[in-house]
Amino acid sequence: MSTFGTLFRVSTYGESHCASVGCIIDGCPPGLPLGQSDIQPQLTRRRPGQSALTTPRNEKDQVQIQSGTEFGYTLGTPIGLLVKNEDQRPHDYSEMDLYPRPSHADWTYLRKYGIKASSGGGRSSARETIGRVAAGAVAEKYLKMVHGVEIVAFVTSVGATHMPLSLNTESEEFQQFVNKVSREDVDSFLPVRCPDEESNKKMGEVIAEFRDKKDSIGGTVMCVIRNVPEGLGEPCFDKLEAKLGHAMMSIPATKGFEIGSGFRGTEIPGSRHNDAFVKKDDGRLGTKTNNSGGIQGGISNGEHIFFKVAFKSPATISQAQGTATYDGKDGTLEAKGRHDPCVVPRAVPIVEAMAALVIMDAVMIQQSRERGRALLDGAKKELSELEKKDVVAPEVGQGNVYGDE
Amino acid sequence: MSTFGTLFRVSTYGESHCASVGCIIDGCPPGLPLGQSDIQPQLTRRRPGQSALTTPRNEKDQVQIQSGTEFGYTLGTPIGLLVKNEDQRPHDYSEMDLYPRPSHADWTYLRKYGIKASSGGGRSSARETIGRVAAGAVAEKYLKMVHGVEIVAFVTSVGATHMPLSLNTESEEFQQFVNKVSREDVDSFLPVRCPDEESNKKMGEVIAEFRDKKDSIGGTVMCVIRNVPEGLGEPCFDKLEAKLGHAMMSIPATKGFEIGSGFRGTEIPGSRHNDAFVKKDDGRLGTKTNNSGGIQGGISNGEHIFFKVAFKSPATISQAQGTATYDGKDGTLEAKGRHDPCVVPRAVPIVEAMAALVIMDAVMIQQSRERGRALLDGAKKELSELEKKDVVAPEVGQGNVYGDE
Amino acid sequence: MSTFGTLFRVSTYGESHCASVGCIIDGCPPGLPLGQSDIQPQLTRRRPGQSALTTPRNEKDQVQIQSGTEFGYTLGTPIGLLVKNEDQRPHDYSEMDLYPRPSHADWTYLRKYGIKASSGGGRSSARETIGRVAAGAVAEKYLKMVHGVEIVAFVTSVGATHMPLSLNTESEEFQQFVNKVSREDVDSFLPVRCPDEESNKKMGEVIAEFRDKKDSIGGTVMCVIRNVPEGLGEPCFDKLEAKLGHAMMSIPATKGFEIGSGFRGTEIPGSRHNDAFVKKDDGRLGTKTNNSGGIQGGISNGEHIFFKVAFKSPATISQAQGTATYDGKDGTLEAKGRHDPCVVPRAVPIVEAMAALVIMDAVMIQQSRERGRALLDGAKKELSELEKKDVVAPEVGQGNVYGDE
Amino acid sequence: MSTFGTLFRVSTYGESHCASVGCIIDGCPPGLPLGQSDIQPQLTRRRPGQSALTTPRNEKDQVQIQSGTEFGYTLGTPIGLLVKNEDQRPHDYSEMDLYPRPSHADWTYLRKYGIKASSGGGRSSARETIGRVAAGAVAEKYLKMVHGVEIVAFVTSVGATHMPLSLNTESEEFQQFVNKVSREDVDSFLPVRCPDEESNKKMGEVIAEFRDKKDSIGGTVMCVIRNVPEGLGEPCFDKLEAKLGHAMMSIPATKGFEIGSGFRGTEIPGSRHNDAFVKKDDGRLGTKTNNSGGIQGGISNGEHIFFKVAFKSPATISQAQGTATYDGKDGTLEAKGRHDPCVVPRAVPIVEAMAALVIMDAVMIQQSRERGRALLDGAKKELSELEKKDVVAPEVGQGNVYGDE
Repeated sequence: MSTFGTLFRVSTYGESHCASVGCIIDGCPPGLPLGQSDIQPQLTRRRPGQSALTTPRNEKDQVQIQSGTEFGYTLGTPIGLLVKNEDQRPHDYSEMDLYPRPSHADWTYLRKYGIKASSGGGRSSARETIGRVAAGAVAEKYLKMVHGVEIVAFVTSVGATHMPLSLNTESEEFQQFVNKVSREDVDSFLPVRCPDEESNKKMGEVIAEFRDKKDSIGGTVMCVIRNVPEGLGEPCFDKLEAKLGHAMMSIPATKGFEIGSGFRGTEIPGSRHNDAFVKKDDGRLGTKTNNSGGIQGGISNGEHIFFKVAFKSPATISQAQGTATYDGKDGTLEAKGRHDPCVVPRAVPIVEAMAALVIMDAVMIQQSRERGRALLDGAKKELSELEKKDVVAPEVGQGNVYGDE
Repeated sequence: MSTFGTLFRVSTYGESHCASVGCIIDGCPPGLPLGQSDIQPQLTRRRPGQSALTTPRNEKDQVQIQSGTEFGYTLGTPIGLLVKNEDQRPHDYSEMDLYPRPSHADWTYLRKYGIKASSGGGRSSARETIGRVAAGAVAEKYLKMVHGVEIVAFVTSVGATHMPLSLNTESEEFQQFVNKVSREDVDSFLPVRCPDEESNKKMGEVIAEFRDKKDSIGGTVMCVIRNVPEGLGEPCFDKLEAKLGHAMMSIPATKGFEIGSGFRGTEIPGSRHNDAFVKKDDGRLGTKTNNSGGIQGGISNGEHIFFKVAFKSPATISQAQGTATYDGKDGTLEAKGRHDPCVVPRAVPIVEAMAALVIMDAVMIQQSRERGRALLDGAKKELSELEKKDVVAPEVGQGNVYGDE
Repeated sequence: MSTFGTLFRVSTYGESHCASVGCIIDGCPPGLPLGQSDIQPQLTRRRPGQSALTTPRNEKDQVQIQSGTEFGYTLGTPIGLLVKNEDQRPHDYSEMDLYPRPSHADWTYLRKYGIKASSGGGRSSARETIGRVAAGAVAEKYLKMVHGVEIVAFVTSVGATHMPLSLNTESEEFQQFVNKVSREDVDSFLPVRCPDEESNKKMGEVIAEFRDKKDSIGGTVMCVIRNVPEGLGEPCFDKLEAKLGHAMMSIPATKGFEIGSGFRGTEIPGSRHNDAFVKKDDGRLGTKTNNSGGIQGGISNGEHIFFKVAFKSPATISQAQGTATYDGKDGTLEAKGRHDPCVVPRAVPIVEAMAALVIMDAVMIQQSRERGRALLDGAKKELSELEKKDVVAPEVGQGNVYGDE
Repeated sequence: MSTFGTLFRVSTYGESHCASVGCIIDGCPPGLPLGQSDIQPQLTRRRPGQSALTTPRNEKDQVQIQSGTEFGYTLGTPIGLLVKNEDQRPHDYSEMDLYPRPSHADWTYLRKYGIKASSGGGRSSARETIGRVAAGAVAEKYLKMVHGVEIVAFVTSVGATHMPLSLNTESEEFQQFVNKVSREDVDSFLPVRCPDEESNKKMGEVIAEFRDKKDSIGGTVMCVIRNVPEGLGEPCFDKLEAKLGHAMMSIPATKGFEIGSGFRGTEIPGSRHNDAFVKKDDGRLGTKTNNSGGIQGGISNGEHIFFKVAFKSPATISQAQGTATYDGKDGTLEAKGRHDPCVVPRAVPIVEAMAALVIMDAVMIQQSRERGRALLDGAKKELSELEKKDVVAPEVGQGNVYGDE
């Protein structure tokens, strides 16, 4: 449904042509400094009309905080956020009413709900993602402030043009890149947001070419999450990569998700794929390599998380398409207006937002366990020495089987 | 956590060396014919020891129904299922106690829970999947009986050896294959379960080679779902592909998920990628091509669903590995015993089970909507003619904006 | 948290002095005629300032539909609703900042969240109930239209003054009253909303008396639900009375809930308390008496549901109270302004709303089961005669073990 | 459904005559010492056949831990628990097959599920409560060990015979009783479990009298929870009293729930009902009186929680009852066997178990918030002095608006 998360829970509403789109964030930690300026930048990065390569419809997308904060701090109560729709004309697509748009959601929404919104695909509109991005910005604020978590997404391919580094995640060079790529870097490569000068330029040309042909093209977005606390993810169904996969595959137009070594990793023998342990400079146990992408057994291990998401070519294109009407008659659909020839540049903040929502919810669930464990340890320390010696099996070859916090 | 689903809800328990593993299925429709013989076959397909290529530990894995059925029919009440563990020795892996196994869950479980199970990764054991497979078999029984749903998974690659057809999902040949591949076909290609004779043979050789080198190798599994009812999937966060992605990425050792045209589809222009509509022989509107993989806007469109899942090379290998102890000292870990050199053959029924759980839950949620819509239509028909004419916007160029059922 | 329901799911936000209060309704059946005029009446019945007996702060409380409807019909997508707060002064209660108000939520919110909203109790404000009432009105629209469900609440006591009929629910007279009491009847007994002329008058006097003494008084509200479909409620934890109890006890200021014969029924012997079955005029099996209050074994039986809710005396009173400051110093708190001396008249639409939310969600869950059962029956009818004879155990002494729909 | 809780989540299965009943507990903190001896005592207190006043069917009810513990400690993974049914005859009640038992669940289960279990009410059997009691014992172990929480339930009425103290919860005497009543005290008053010698004796006589008349009688159970951490309960729908009400009303045969001053409290003026604050001996702010029953604004305030639950007279009685068959024909039902004439003595451990489940889940959710708040405070302390001065609004007349932990 339109709710995501267990303890940090986001519910969204709104489609293309209604009064507003927005969300309710329930479970945000109290005492977090929060204002509109924490949320607006990501909304602005998401909105169309940022360049000649994206759709020219200029939405202003100013977020309004409705509740849950006072004097600039969160109260712990639900945070209501809304962004007004400036264009509320319900019949913008009326010329297309005879045809369900191919590979769009017009037909499936009609079949599911038995009623046709004038905007066609209803909630499948990219405008639905505003609530996600707003909520993700709130999650990020906490994660950054408390854990120093950094979430950076960037474009790794447009059509057949790939950022070379992204194809070799085993390389030392890739790992170094992952260590340092920043959102500022990424935005210095507008309009495509591929942080590799040559690739960025070429991708921009590819998008322009498809725009000029009234066609569209897909691409991939990679996301890196640094400083992830250890221990996130709930076995067995809610493994961290499962929640990330869920989150990413819920973004409109996504067709694939891979983490760490991903599909290519299936071809690497275990002896090379395994991430050997090593004592890191800070004294913690870490891994030499990171084919696992920061998650093992469904639980974060403290290494960087990185994953890639596939976005298909946008379904709405301006060239004529042979297809059939709702009634099954063959015909030709010619969409009016101008449309995004490629979504990946705008998808960057959406991928970041969904990543933030997943990590934040996992952090809040794990926080409960950590606190419980600490309290339990404290309680056990009050037991007599006689009782204490049986508390944990000491033979595991490690002084401290209870992780420190 | 260990619960999956909203209306058809499965909770599982158990790890390698405890008394039993099992699950509770809540929300199964009442009146479904169900016995152990409906569940056992998939458990048997899942269990190790099926051939020289898989681990020789022969678990019998007989399912026992504890509750929820009577006289061979489900009562609608929770179905308790359990499979006894025959090998309950808690310290089978004791020689490895000094080392967290690389790319296994020993370390992350310790960090998450602060306590180390003697079996190491606890719930990350493949044995945890028994509950999923048992529950999936129950879901499948209903889906097959009521909707004729057919779920067939098969191996599409082992290491660098790919089943050629699986690499070209746009082809007519692939679509025909998807139309007819059956579980019986797949099982006629033991031990690898790749329904292409040449590939199957070669994959078997690859696995044997890695087994002999005390190494391991990954692979991919594709899954086809036929006769999926239209309208499944809940926008916006619970799109059908998002739930499938979640389900698949929750299977141990998975690293990637793609649906329909997937990652390769990102390189196909929209004009070619779009699935044009066409009136099918049975009079329904369908699509000419199926790059969408049966889902558009997060909702099933009635075409076949197909997706692919990446499984990494198993982390447990018998050759010596340089790594570090829990205490951070460098050393060499040498695992005893024999281990699965490749998991994809056994992953086939697990992928099918998780697919069944996703589809079943989506069916049950959509059933509520369909019933509500039908009742609402009935209620509206009782309104006066005057009121009725406004009930739905008639200008959408289609006689019946309410889908028939 | 601030979300209620599984398939008909309401999330609310907002407190006293923020920009707006509102809710998102997810899962509303598509095609339901819905406009603001369906929602406003209950909001108006809820709002303060309706008479000299309630608080004079006149909130207009006009609901604005943000999304989820078009041309007057629901789309099946989330319905965003909001009501602006006209009084957004954050420091209305500043004179009371030194003292946590006794029996209010100031202290517990501070202890829970570690931060103090200027309004004190934050979400414990009665203003929070606006989202509930708005959502309840939407649920009611469907329930009324499709099932003819009628939900009527009314005041049964103020202080020690009880509506006599409400104390003898076993009586034939009470059952007849339950059969016919309407919302219009109830509102003809303003300002108290007790549908018994003498009691209503006396209760009004009691409230006026407490108002004049700068004191407050509690009371009870009874709610009747007619035409409830059979089969609602999910064993074992989500019995219908458990969900109703949950819903009612979540309304601010409630201290008790009882259904059917309730607390008094514990004193009635089983032989008299049991509701014997009888064939009703319409041919259905029903019960002669209704001590069960329409629910048996957690499942609705088609008889009227009726229950009673206890509301404590409002904590905010204008007279001086001896208490302690946040710092633990003894002192005297004197609240300014005028406050509701008794909440039960305004609680009537809130009780109705929460009842509607519970019944609606239960209806939607049961609709899934009914549809599944019907589809399963259809599938079974296609089996051969040989197989069919085993489909259900025929020996239960009843022709139709499958309920008709 | 059959799952309860968010972070401490219990799923149960099983009915009267299946192979076993049991539960899965997901989310139990790791490192908790746990063995069968922690669980068995409450199961033994629950089981029938404890005295001449309860049903003679002697079930042994030995719990078996299936998973989730090792060497006597919980692993943090799901704990599977089961109790074998010794009496698995599916047709024990066959003589009653023609009649739905009045006020039992036979009819409603048939209407809900469309299929009739031979045991009649299926999951409405009291045997279903075994899973609850087992899970509750695990929750209690943690609560007791970490927070010193004490949960004690006892019988406060049988029929019209009330324990006098329970009728005057405002009295100092009652508060002193609540301070010290223990489970041992309660069990010293077998078979009724009313910790008041005279009442206990009289109640025993009343039950014997109804047993001899082949009739049944209801009663009430009060439950006291001491040492409840402050801050439990999630506004607005999951107030602590709402969750307690939900939990209690989900126990078979319950008809009412009241907390603190309850129904009687509605007659007490606010000026007397309000619980004034006072500095307690340990320096904490507490309340002089406790009409709130330990919860204000839906959140625990650290005072004792106490509430009362109404149980109706058991529906199954041995005397002949005029009623109708499934087919609607008038007749007389005469139940065979011996039945519990009053359930309240056995309900005591069930009430305690459900209370433990509610408190435990609330504790785990609040633990997450506390940990998040502490981490956030830590992060803020690292900000510059300049920034720090704005962190919280200092004008609230209180040094520490952040609660200490």
